[in-house]
Amino acid sequence: MRETVGVAFIGAGRMGLSHARTLGGIPAARVVVVADPDLEAARRGQALCGAETATSDIDAAIGAPGVEAVMIVTPTNTHAALIQKAARAGKAVWCEKPIALTLAETQQTLEVVEAAGVPCQIGFQRRYDPGYAQARRLIEEGKLGKLEAFRALSRDTYLPSPQSLPPSGGTFLDMSVHDFDLARFLVGEVEEVSAWGAVLAHPMFADADDCDTAVCMLRFESGVLGVVEAARHSNWGYDIRTEVAGSEGKVVIEAPPKTPLQHFTGFQNHTDVYLNFPDRFEQAYRSQMEAFFDALLQGKTPTPGPRDALETLRICLAAKQSWKQGRPVKVREVRD
Amino acid sequence: MRETVGVAFIGAGRMGLSHARTLGGIPAARVVVVADPDLEAARRGQALCGAETATSDIDAAIGAPGVEAVMIVTPTNTHAALIQKAARAGKAVWCEKPIALTLAETQQTLEVVEAAGVPCQIGFQRRYDPGYAQARRLIEEGKLGKLEAFRALSRDTYLPSPQSLPPSGGTFLDMSVHDFDLARFLVGEVEEVSAWGAVLAHPMFADADDCDTAVCMLRFESGVLGVVEAARHSNWGYDIRTEVAGSEGKVVIEAPPKTPLQHFTGFQNHTDVYLNFPDRFEQAYRSQMEAFFDALLQGKTPTPGPRDALETLRICLAAKQSWKQGRPVKVREVRD
Amino acid sequence: MRETVGVAFIGAGRMGLSHARTLGGIPAARVVVVADPDLEAARRGQALCGAETATSDIDAAIGAPGVEAVMIVTPTNTHAALIQKAARAGKAVWCEKPIALTLAETQQTLEVVEAAGVPCQIGFQRRYDPGYAQARRLIEEGKLGKLEAFRALSRDTYLPSPQSLPPSGGTFLDMSVHDFDLARFLVGEVEEVSAWGAVLAHPMFADADDCDTAVCMLRFESGVLGVVEAARHSNWGYDIRTEVAGSEGKVVIEAPPKTPLQHFTGFQNHTDVYLNFPDRFEQAYRSQMEAFFDALLQGKTPTPGPRDALETLRICLAAKQSWKQGRPVKVREVRD
Amino acid sequence: MRETVGVAFIGAGRMGLSHARTLGGIPAARVVVVADPDLEAARRGQALCGAETATSDIDAAIGAPGVEAVMIVTPTNTHAALIQKAARAGKAVWCEKPIALTLAETQQTLEVVEAAGVPCQIGFQRRYDPGYAQARRLIEEGKLGKLEAFRALSRDTYLPSPQSLPPSGGTFLDMSVHDFDLARFLVGEVEEVSAWGAVLAHPMFADADDCDTAVCMLRFESGVLGVVEAARHSNWGYDIRTEVAGSEGKVVIEAPPKTPLQHFTGFQNHTDVYLNFPDRFEQAYRSQMEAFFDALLQGKTPTPGPRDALETLRICLAAKQSWKQGRPVKVREVRD
Repeated sequence: MRETVGVAFIGAGRMGLSHARTLGGIPAARVVVVADPDLEAARRGQALCGAETATSDIDAAIGAPGVEAVMIVTPTNTHAALIQKAARAGKAVWCEKPIALTLAETQQTLEVVEAAGVPCQIGFQRRYDPGYAQARRLIEEGKLGKLEAFRALSRDTYLPSPQSLPPSGGTFLDMSVHDFDLARFLVGEVEEVSAWGAVLAHPMFADADDCDTAVCMLRFESGVLGVVEAARHSNWGYDIRTEVAGSEGKVVIEAPPKTPLQHFTGFQNHTDVYLNFPDRFEQAYRSQMEAFFDALLQGKTPTPGPRDALETLRICLAAKQSWKQGRPVKVREVRD
Repeated sequence: MRETVGVAFIGAGRMGLSHARTLGGIPAARVVVVADPDLEAARRGQALCGAETATSDIDAAIGAPGVEAVMIVTPTNTHAALIQKAARAGKAVWCEKPIALTLAETQQTLEVVEAAGVPCQIGFQRRYDPGYAQARRLIEEGKLGKLEAFRALSRDTYLPSPQSLPPSGGTFLDMSVHDFDLARFLVGEVEEVSAWGAVLAHPMFADADDCDTAVCMLRFESGVLGVVEAARHSNWGYDIRTEVAGSEGKVVIEAPPKTPLQHFTGFQNHTDVYLNFPDRFEQAYRSQMEAFFDALLQGKTPTPGPRDALETLRICLAAKQSWKQGRPVKVREVRD
Repeated sequence: MRETVGVAFIGAGRMGLSHARTLGGIPAARVVVVADPDLEAARRGQALCGAETATSDIDAAIGAPGVEAVMIVTPTNTHAALIQKAARAGKAVWCEKPIALTLAETQQTLEVVEAAGVPCQIGFQRRYDPGYAQARRLIEEGKLGKLEAFRALSRDTYLPSPQSLPPSGGTFLDMSVHDFDLARFLVGEVEEVSAWGAVLAHPMFADADDCDTAVCMLRFESGVLGVVEAARHSNWGYDIRTEVAGSEGKVVIEAPPKTPLQHFTGFQNHTDVYLNFPDRFEQAYRSQMEAFFDALLQGKTPTPGPRDALETLRICLAAKQSWKQGRPVKVREVRD
Repeated sequence: MRETVGVAFIGAGRMGLSHARTLGGIPAARVVVVADPDLEAARRGQALCGAETATSDIDAAIGAPGVEAVMIVTPTNTHAALIQKAARAGKAVWCEKPIALTLAETQQTLEVVEAAGVPCQIGFQRRYDPGYAQARRLIEEGKLGKLEAFRALSRDTYLPSPQSLPPSGGTFLDMSVHDFDLARFLVGEVEEVSAWGAVLAHPMFADADDCDTAVCMLRFESGVLGVVEAARHSNWGYDIRTEVAGSEGKVVIEAPPKTPLQHFTGFQNHTDVYLNFPDRFEQAYRSQMEAFFDALLQGKTPTPGPRDALETLRICLAAKQSWKQGRPVKVREVRD
């Protein structure tokens, strides 16, 4: 591994093609092959990232000559097996979040990765957004003093499809997972969670035994208190806001107007809001990949890794169980 | 009552003098007398609001000739008795919040006021802030669609004095009361509360059996979910933010920069934050008084009234009990 | 003059009534009399500021017992004579801008005031807006380093009436006067002006030999360069923006959103703009009066005074002549 | 020309390498060769854009097999000759602005391009910034009504090197050129210019017979009035603001905070400002290249073309001559 890293890119669905396009703009990546069970999709991915070949044979792609790293953007329920396969083949791994929806499968994957000793990064892209990254720097530098409060709000723009609900694990595992990961990234480990959910936006959530609106209290191990809110639709655009407050200051991470234009008319000023995660986190998606390849080329451990995925999953499950059971849940005691 | 209303103004402490000054700028108010047990203080109040006389005899002030309305800005533990005395004397009443710290005393005062049939307004000034007032209008006009979520954050700037803590009723009754009142004003009645508190800012709160940092979940009778956060100090200024989100839009009520000036230097833009409630809510303090006198002169019922104080107090007590007892509390079932 | 100042308030037209109301909220002012040729108008003013009496006899008002200061909010063409009359009677004077529309009349008034040795303040209220005041402080403290550039934009909301155009002196004397005064207040004296005008909004401006849209370049005596823009109507609200840039930083003075509320819907964020000068400069109108009475009570010279009115008028005339004559004009060489 | 376009990329200096990196992320570009007299530089460019080869022979690059388009990012004084050479070879051309610093050379190049009938795009990237592009759309849709005013401010962050001043053509040709191009893009052709310049930031500008601070008035053919300001250094970051106002509304194009983070501390809110054109216009640099390749692949005429470069240069020269000669200059009458 000198100046470029040979890559096998697995998965050419909607999210996969988006990542493939991003990958195409990263000079450190030399994409050997794009693989997808649907060969046509694989070829579309190949065009977007400038890969040498495309294939429908995923195993062959992982083992292809010149492949040093495997990037996995497949359906969630295939992540764990593919990570393990790539790790056992001695490849560095980048995988979209989550590893799996159970602690058992996540834990087992973590063990395989650690046993193989390969670098492994999980796609919690928000950590690489310039806002969240700077928040972390300011906190580490002590600019916020002793931390006291955390707050996260996430509102997706478009309702998910009914079919996507059961395999997603539900609102806490599918949406709040990003906020719980940021809670850990910015403040530290969470000790206890108390959550409420409701179905206010669409009855399909009730049918799926899920909620579309949720609120949640967090107590961190350090004593800091937090709240997390989630909602599954928004007519005003993608709404992501995170706050960390301490004795010396506060940071708020929230997108400024999307378009650098103010339109004044009728005694009002109108500005644009980001549509969805691809435009809000465009830079973060690129930066997390650049960080992965930088780490590989410099022999550093990429981050966040599978242990982050495991600890964040614990909080998701604690929140879900808290809602279902109507009681606070300790994160350490959570079981699948 | 034609063009002006004769007023007895009771209480010339720090908050009283601030209100007296505001009162001095209201043409509809003709201030007959300012009363305070400390005659020197009463005279300072007299100067600020242009009152005809000052006295240390509160009973005499309430009964003074020409007095049609009594305004009460005394220590909290005297509010109920003074409201009752003024109401029994047939005077209109304006009183700083709260009426009392118990449901029993608040309920009894409400009954006296209703029996006397006098107008009575309680000083939840935020309802008269242009931001909150416009939020209410937009919600009533249906601009937010079906409501789904409420969020309120309040951070006071300066720590209270240790002596003030026990008589205040604690963080939920003293600070969050404003947010709970706004929850009712903007969304509707609250069914259930779950709250956590912590002492992170100063040990005096532990000594007073109080918390300085709190988070709280609300479930409204309509099914809407909410969160309320409170903290007792801030080095970045007075931090009040309220959000209401629905199927068709969201409103955020938060102060814009205090000074209409941006200072660019060193690759940053620096803007001022409001210091504290007197500057953040200066206009609301004036508007609530104007609304009181407008109501009196036009024969309308001023709002918010003692029933609002009672219902809001229930939520405060539910939150406090939830925190103390470690369980969700139904607002309807709350007892002193 | 101890704690209050006895005032004769002259002029109860639209602007006069607005000022009278402001005056009513200033404890240091004891309003003896409101005078207006229209006695009914005077009585309305009396009610708004709580004056002791009202009269249609302006001379009597100026000479009334207890009157220490005369406030003049009459039509522009009466300002100079009234200031002189009040000054000769030994009264302190506050007068709306401008003193007059000619250098000769302004100069003569200045001489009368100086000969009488009375305090005299002219109503350039923007200097008392918190934004402009803070800009001045930052500049004086050296926070902007060596100044390099000035920029001012003013857009009124509503077109003036056709009748008001000729007596106003035109766009440069009526509107840009505020920006030229700020140029002097923030940067210093102006050496040369070059201006262009156009009629784009309404033909009545052409009929009045005036323009409704104007641009102007300023060269300050210090070498700083500036631009001033003016326009007479706006469908998006009152649009006032001023910038001063230097080697170490820049200040921008511009109103933040009028209402402390953001309304998100339809992938946009909508905020309110100020309607017009009364709401944009409400605080400045109050502060300039408070400053006048503070100066009187403390024996200080109130500011800005008649010399500021004179020097600012020179720039207005220079701009107007530059536009009419199609050439740059030196401010020092300007004649009526 | 089907799905990709074969490219010869000429020039691997600082700006060239930046463009080469951008080019590397554009799937429609197949970079055949990077050429620079300095072969080492060419090889750095090759790595950044994934080119097949690198060479120090520019003529060979233009004529290389598979090359359909030539991209030119060389020193300004070589632009015209290289555009002509590429055009005569029948290649599509993309060239950084300007074509040349004289009307004669620009006109001659335009004629060669038109005679050759090849597509040619000049790098006025701001037209592809989402803010400016949306401004144009709103204006074309009539959302601003009848246009009345234009205003542009440009402040570069870092002073240029003394050596770069003479070949740059000076502040009006080097910096204001972007604002003059936007004036034409958003409002239309300019009829007359009046400009003032000063040396306030650094004496090297006087030595180069140039200015570092400039203001300028524009009169458009439609009667609209405008101002343009320019300054050569800024300690608060890259400061670009453009406004267009009309009878029905106003647009302001200005970057929102660079980092999506607000840092509150010490009673202030602090946000980041963009450093310089590469970060402020990162998206525009990419979008203008995408637009070039889209136009080639779809057989459309790319824009802006050499005629835009010519018309914009006229305004630059008019402003420079206005400053030097101390009089307004008609754009149509300008000569080299």
